[in-house]
Amino acid sequence: MSKNLTNRSEDYSKWYNELVVKADLAENSAVRGCMVIKPYGYAIWEKMQAELDRMFKETGHQNAYFPLFVPKSLFEAEEKNAEGFAKECAVVTHYRLQNDPDNEGKLRVDPEAKLEEELVVRPTSEAIIWNTYKGWIQSYRDLPILVNQWANVVRWEMRTRLFLRTAEFLWQEGHTAHATKAEAWEETKLINNVYANFAENFMAIPVIQGLKTESERFAGAEETMCIEALMQDGKALQAGTSHFLGQNFAKAFDVKFTNKEGKQDYVWATSWGVSTRLVGALIMTHSDDKGLVLPPSLAPNQVVIVPIYRNDEQLEKITHVANTIMSDLRGKGVSVKFDNRTTFRPGAKFAQHELQGVPLRIAIGPKDLENGTVELARRDTLTKEIVSLDTLTDTVEQLMTEIQETLFKKALDFRDAHITKVDTFDEFKTVLENKAGFILAHWDGTSETENKIKELTKATIRCIPIDNTVEEGKCVYSGNPSKQRVLFAKAY
Amino acid sequence: MSKNLTNRSEDYSKWYNELVVKADLAENSAVRGCMVIKPYGYAIWEKMQAELDRMFKETGHQNAYFPLFVPKSLFEAEEKNAEGFAKECAVVTHYRLQNDPDNEGKLRVDPEAKLEEELVVRPTSEAIIWNTYKGWIQSYRDLPILVNQWANVVRWEMRTRLFLRTAEFLWQEGHTAHATKAEAWEETKLINNVYANFAENFMAIPVIQGLKTESERFAGAEETMCIEALMQDGKALQAGTSHFLGQNFAKAFDVKFTNKEGKQDYVWATSWGVSTRLVGALIMTHSDDKGLVLPPSLAPNQVVIVPIYRNDEQLEKITHVANTIMSDLRGKGVSVKFDNRTTFRPGAKFAQHELQGVPLRIAIGPKDLENGTVELARRDTLTKEIVSLDTLTDTVEQLMTEIQETLFKKALDFRDAHITKVDTFDEFKTVLENKAGFILAHWDGTSETENKIKELTKATIRCIPIDNTVEEGKCVYSGNPSKQRVLFAKAY
Ligand SMILES: [Zn+2]
Ligand SMILES: [Zn+2]
Repeated sequence: MSKNLTNRSEDYSKWYNELVVKADLAENSAVRGCMVIKPYGYAIWEKMQAELDRMFKETGHQNAYFPLFVPKSLFEAEEKNAEGFAKECAVVTHYRLQNDPDNEGKLRVDPEAKLEEELVVRPTSEAIIWNTYKGWIQSYRDLPILVNQWANVVRWEMRTRLFLRTAEFLWQEGHTAHATKAEAWEETKLINNVYANFAENFMAIPVIQGLKTESERFAGAEETMCIEALMQDGKALQAGTSHFLGQNFAKAFDVKFTNKEGKQDYVWATSWGVSTRLVGALIMTHSDDKGLVLPPSLAPNQVVIVPIYRNDEQLEKITHVANTIMSDLRGKGVSVKFDNRTTFRPGAKFAQHELQGVPLRIAIGPKDLENGTVELARRDTLTKEIVSLDTLTDTVEQLMTEIQETLFKKALDFRDAHITKVDTFDEFKTVLENKAGFILAHWDGTSETENKIKELTKATIRCIPIDNTVEEGKCVYSGNPSKQRVLFAKAY
Repeated sequence: MSKNLTNRSEDYSKWYNELVVKADLAENSAVRGCMVIKPYGYAIWEKMQAELDRMFKETGHQNAYFPLFVPKSLFEAEEKNAEGFAKECAVVTHYRLQNDPDNEGKLRVDPEAKLEEELVVRPTSEAIIWNTYKGWIQSYRDLPILVNQWANVVRWEMRTRLFLRTAEFLWQEGHTAHATKAEAWEETKLINNVYANFAENFMAIPVIQGLKTESERFAGAEETMCIEALMQDGKALQAGTSHFLGQNFAKAFDVKFTNKEGKQDYVWATSWGVSTRLVGALIMTHSDDKGLVLPPSLAPNQVVIVPIYRNDEQLEKITHVANTIMSDLRGKGVSVKFDNRTTFRPGAKFAQHELQGVPLRIAIGPKDLENGTVELARRDTLTKEIVSLDTLTDTVEQLMTEIQETLFKKALDFRDAHITKVDTFDEFKTVLENKAGFILAHWDGTSETENKIKELTKATIRCIPIDNTVEEGKCVYSGNPSKQRVLFAKAY
């Protein structure tokens, strides 16, 4: 495994692409824009899934599964949603292949097996789900419905990048139904909070919660909440969204219920999702020129033990020590792997675990056997220390917490140092060019100004932060009055 | 929720369909042949997934994820595999919809957005995976690869039934690569054993392990192992398969490696899978005319507590007792739900939990409060007893094991009582007609005879059991010599 990554300062984008492939996280496939998520990358995604799934269930949600395909007539029912996704969807038109008469051993689409109605491969599942909910909801007693789905979705993106933007990706999509507007709003906020907690406490990624502007909203939503993170190159990344859908889908699919007063009303809806894109956010938040850096909560192996030996006798003794360490650490809930492969030398193992971001490395050599010590190396700070076996378990346990906190703190400091208030458009452009990061500026609230700024600078309004304070000001572009600053950035 | 299921004896197939829908497990969707798995059904599938995933990981496997789509040119590379699935695959031909100029508000496939190469929605992933493995394998050091994927697949079946046969289904598919034939064979057997253990010890479904005949083999496999279960109507159900693929896929995708001796060789392969079909097997093995019966290992709620009260004061006291019971049971790892919904009466709750197969029901009424007791009802035996609160936790804990064992024993007795040895074709037909179940009969080993028997009786060879004893005999159909009996049945 070659360690030589391009430096971030040299070419951030190249560094990212190389890291993903060299750390064995994912690779491009034979299908345009679709990736293969390799076991190491998938193990990280599994950790995310497990924690999110726990959080969803704790807040009363259940999982279910809805069809991969959406018949065209359902797909087009909610007009804005359809318009938003029509331009990038994979369409199934036939259900059979046959031998190609002109080409022996080859197959072709059987022209006789054309579907009467085309099927869209789900880019998102509101349509198929609300068509289903119609059968589930008659009365307020059937509400709320709090359902989540873990699934693959397909959006035919033209420019794709591993994890960040792929034609097929894995995600979870929650779809809830409520009797009142207030309850649907509470759900929208609850989930955005779950996402923010997950990002900060589990992924060690600081995020800003906010509302999207109209032009950045989910197609079919009345409001979109989001969490926005900042990557090391100063570009923002939308890490999760929670949509208040109003009664749009209930109206499109005619989903009414009898309320407590015996009156008919349309059902209120939310939907929300995070995806394998989070793996990209994880990489770009914490990693360095030597490779991946993982917070302990997300590391498939939190600790790796590498034996250093010249003969079998030494290896046997080291193995004995390693087994004790592993049993102690596992007892404390720390995952640990003994890398006793004979096909690689210690140096190669060190390099691989560094590249793959294992939070702690324990090396045990002949000297350590004599002294009752090990060498402990931290991936995040790249520091090493000699630790006595007596205190090793406690030290490792403490470091799990410390590394997690250090990574969050570091990312938070970086993020906070890259939020800049600006009051003129010149300043806006200068900051964007030279410092990048988030820009807090006044905006007159019109899509026209928003589009103009995007056209001129490529910066978009990432969100209107929810903890905004009222502040009289003038729009950084138009000079028109504004009541609050909004968050701009160039974004992934 | 209406309880009135058709009796099994009256119409088994109708009973099954009604049960699936009324117990809230799944329903048909707007997409032909595709089902919606409802939260209660999905919770059962999640239990299966968790246990299988644990078993796979314990035996050294890792999860990964490969694309949903298979380019046609890859799909057709392994000829037998392609031939086996070509007639039932969904094909993506376009990647965009546009506004229909003839039909305002409607969409149509954009004729300009035709794919250069069609994409097959994976019916199984050998092709896309072996095309990927080509890049992962150079040397024996890269082997074995022990990878599993949890995914959806699509097979355009013409006649579908909820869980048993659906156009889209959820499954896991393992795909392993090995340096030697022997190792690949060991893997094939290991996994078939994992499946058998899972079916018997977790699902309480007795199974027979065996080898498929050539005509029942997976398309592209050299051998297929399977586990076969028997349903209550005397029909067999293939519950899992493990395929020894030889070097077929390695040759089709040119996957070679340098072995320890420095020579080039093709890689050996296995693949194996179980699917949401298992939910169908579960239902048809244990359930009765009153609804679903679940083994405790698979029950989303193992125990439900129903309060019976006339006023708020009583409910408050019952709630207090219920909270203590729940905390005690959860401490023992038993999942329990307090059904304190005010929108349903106790009778309706009893009916629902019976229909949904909750293994144990605890009812607490005013009398119980006075006596320090509860009423405990078993779903499997439909028996009730009054139990003192002092011994309740222990009793419930013991019953979890006992119910699991009782269900397995009952299914095993039924299965064993429905394996019949026959020696003439008349007997074969009579048994099949009047008793059904598995038939052990001599077979001459030819596909011709196998097909003829299928044509005449609809019975197929389910497998050649792996624990077969050599026994000289004559084929039940042709009279030709045979060395062992094989297992026939009509099958799902
Ligand atoms: Zn900077
Ligand atoms: Zn019988």
